[in-house]
Amino acid sequence: MKIIVIGAAGTIGTAVVEELGRRHDIVAVGKSRGQYQADMTDYAQVQALFGKVGKADAVVVAAGIMALEPLAGMTPERFRVGLNSKLMGQVHVALAAQHALNDGGSITLTSGIDVYHPIRHAANAVTSNAAVEGFVRGAAIELARGIRINAVTPGLLTESKEAYGHLFPGFETVPARRVALAYARSVEGAQTGQIYKVW
Amino acid sequence: MKIIVIGAAGTIGTAVVEELGRRHDIVAVGKSRGQYQADMTDYAQVQALFGKVGKADAVVVAAGIMALEPLAGMTPERFRVGLNSKLMGQVHVALAAQHALNDGGSITLTSGIDVYHPIRHAANAVTSNAAVEGFVRGAAIELARGIRINAVTPGLLTESKEAYGHLFPGFETVPARRVALAYARSVEGAQTGQIYKVW
Ligand SMILES: NC(=O)c1ccc[n+]([C@@H]2O[C@H](COP(=O)([O-])OP(=O)(O)OC[C@H]3O[C@@H](n4cnc5c(N)ncnc54)[C@H](OP(=O)(O)O)[C@@H]3O)[C@@H](O)[C@H]2O)c1
Ligand SMILES: NC(=O)c1ccc[n+]([C@@H]2O[C@H](COP(=O)([O-])OP(=O)(O)OC[C@H]3O[C@@H](n4cnc5c(N)ncnc54)[C@H](OP(=O)(O)O)[C@@H]3O)[C@@H](O)[C@H]2O)c1
Repeated sequence: MKIIVIGAAGTIGTAVVEELGRRHDIVAVGKSRGQYQADMTDYAQVQALFGKVGKADAVVVAAGIMALEPLAGMTPERFRVGLNSKLMGQVHVALAAQHALNDGGSITLTSGIDVYHPIRHAANAVTSNAAVEGFVRGAAIELARGIRINAVTPGLLTESKEAYGHLFPGFETVPARRVALAYARSVEGAQTGQIYKVW
Repeated sequence: MKIIVIGAAGTIGTAVVEELGRRHDIVAVGKSRGQYQADMTDYAQVQALFGKVGKADAVVVAAGIMALEPLAGMTPERFRVGLNSKLMGQVHVALAAQHALNDGGSITLTSGIDVYHPIRHAANAVTSNAAVEGFVRGAAIELARGIRINAVTPGLLTESKEAYGHLFPGFETVPARRVALAYARSVEGAQTGQIYKVW
């Protein structure tokens, strides 16, 4: 399969490329790094990316930021950070991919454990990630040409413990290698509308 | 209690006002109707509303639109309809209410059954409603001064069957009167971070 990985150079993306790269052709995409550059918050750049890459069998997104800050000081502008990046960035990819991928192709998006286990300062994250999961369930039953869509919902990665561990008191971490398997399950499996939780 | 109901003249709002109006003072708000007018998609109007109404004990939102249309033709612009209205409209109300309500006050938002039972042409609705529910779970653990937040997730109302029944094949309907009880449970109860499903 030819698999586009958006966020290929990131913590999760690197592990996904390692896992899927053993058996498939990977097209590595990032905002600033990788084989192709595209800012997924800009729909025109996402459409241009699919045009340049040509027919592919799957797209994986392991990217998207959110505003991790106290609710008391949250403004609508700051709240838009997660909606524009984590949510609409991934929705842009799915809207374009439904037309660009080969028949029977797959779209795999990324959510986060906070949806099921909320933490402090994460109202924007829980909202954005819950929205991504809702999109996956809503879109799955409408996609044509056998195209599938799933999301992976990772816990805190062992590799990210130093950077984000203080936000997740008492949470066990999960190695990127295990999280990457869930992306393989989505891409190489046959299910659609699934949320693969890994923690 | 003094309870602000946004969308008071709507199908759900009318039933909520009837139920809660028996025991409490209702401030009826709408976009064009009601005692006060405010467009909740505009944060400045939401803040001005709380300023005009003065201290209140609860706010209920039974308003918000979404783009109910096929995924195949969905554009990012159309997808923003639900995010701007159903999601950000309600988030605007919650962000302002956390500062404006009396201690121990409550915020009650509205989702929809499609989150749990997706229907065709509802990717934008499922996304927006799932986001509202995520916001409720994320915000509940951070609100100060004993302020609570919940969402009501109604099935298709019996009163709305003529308008929307064609979108919900085989769904049983629920009378507005039963849905209104869930809003009373949120406002007069003691729980927070809850999603009250009524169908
Ligand atoms: N790490 C965790 O513990 C964890 C846990 C649960 C969920 N997640 C979620 O998983 C996703 C990836 O996390 P990560 O830790 O692997 O991130 P990361 O290490 O910071 O890597 C992010 C990757 O995404 C790319 N990217 C960022 N913004 C982009 C945009 N607008 N358009 C296109 N590409 C963009 C970056 O590209 P460049 O490098 O080229 O700029 C980078 O390759 C995030 O959404 C995060 O919320 C992470
Ligand atoms: N009806 C159902 O079967 C059903 C089922 C599940 C969920 N829901 C959800 O419940 C909510 C209410 O539904 P409904 O059927 O009761 O709606 P409705 O009868 O159309 O009434 C909507 C109300 O919201 C107000 N409104 C609309 N946009 C607004 C805005 N931007 N700012 C402030 N107020 C605004 C309207 O005010 P004015 O009249 O003053 O213009 C009206 O009072 C919707 O979000 C809907 O998705 C409905």
